[in-house]
Amino acid sequence: MLTQHELRVETNGRGTHDLSADIQSVVRRSGVTSGMCHVFIRHTSASLILCENADPAVMRDLETFMLRQAPDGDPMFTHTAEGPDDMPAHIRSILTQSDLNLPVRDGHCALGTWQGIYLWEHRHRGHRRTIVITVQGE
Amino acid sequence: MLTQHELRVETNGRGTHDLSADIQSVVRRSGVTSGMCHVFIRHTSASLILCENADPAVMRDLETFMLRQAPDGDPMFTHTAEGPDDMPAHIRSILTQSDLNLPVRDGHCALGTWQGIYLWEHRHRGHRRTIVITVQGE
Amino acid sequence: MLTQHELRVETNGRGTHDLSADIQSVVRRSGVTSGMCHVFIRHTSASLILCENADPAVMRDLETFMLRQAPDGDPMFTHTAEGPDDMPAHIRSILTQSDLNLPVRDGHCALGTWQGIYLWEHRHRGHRRTIVITVQGE
Repeated sequence: MLTQHELRVETNGRGTHDLSADIQSVVRRSGVTSGMCHVFIRHTSASLILCENADPAVMRDLETFMLRQAPDGDPMFTHTAEGPDDMPAHIRSILTQSDLNLPVRDGHCALGTWQGIYLWEHRHRGHRRTIVITVQGE
Repeated sequence: MLTQHELRVETNGRGTHDLSADIQSVVRRSGVTSGMCHVFIRHTSASLILCENADPAVMRDLETFMLRQAPDGDPMFTHTAEGPDDMPAHIRSILTQSDLNLPVRDGHCALGTWQGIYLWEHRHRGHRRTIVITVQGE
Repeated sequence: MLTQHELRVETNGRGTHDLSADIQSVVRRSGVTSGMCHVFIRHTSASLILCENADPAVMRDLETFMLRQAPDGDPMFTHTAEGPDDMPAHIRSILTQSDLNLPVRDGHCALGTWQGIYLWEHRHRGHRRTIVITVQGE
């Protein structure tokens, strides 16, 4: 059994969006009870992470960390066509994930208690992002 | 053909644990000769890596590197509920992998000669970690 | 339906190689119209990324960034058996991907407009790299 689904997310600029409920809902509706759920983002300036889902300070600290790793407007970057956050967005994407694969068990993704699935927008301006979800199994 | 298996690992605090033999054994017992093996860790402060399996200095250097990237107790972190290694553990998890997908060929994971599969505990205290292994194929 | 294919790439030293056309061709020949394409590199000093495929400055900036993160010959590294780029190559590999999973739709990988699939050689010397591609689906 294999189903594919497209999810569209409007972002409001840099920050994370919790996709956990949407993805669990796609898995539930797929009818797969045991198998895999694959989540893929079709962009190179937004990415996916599995992260602690309880304390909002975690997301703020992740932003602080990434801003230190790849500062907007750092003079080492030459790819600046779309502004000072253009190359940092690609780097944040490379350092995190464009695809996540999650085991499906008993009809839902077998996430740990503290794991949430997040889209991370790395551009300051809002974007329309497309995610492809593939569920396969029995 | 699809089988799922849960692996539990008791860690003794920060450091790596070689899971290669355990995972190859799960694949062998699954009866799948050609397909995929998916390894998933259900935590956000421990992660998975594929890494050089010969020289223990590699693991020590990885620790040194990560400690420089995200120092324990760095004042930039505000999420410190569980101590100075709490936020660095989430960052190390984000920068590495929560899931690995490995091709199965001739009844085992087709790893390169120098590739080992490691659980990387990022907390200083030991934890009981749960890993879900899904093997699918023919 | 499941097919596996091995791709060999001769690198000329540090830098990226666009694998997109080769991988799309393997998917097309597999006959799978809907499913998954998995790409796996059997090495720990070269890796895989999905990255912006239009401006060559992106790749140059990625090199600059990684060189700052893990400088060749940094005295913090003790694993130097194969030279000053040995440990930095393992770190670059850990921070990026050894495997990518891509959704197959209408007989090809459903990449975004700006996404290319790249092998990233992290050693200064050229190497022969082996990639295992598994396509499964309907």
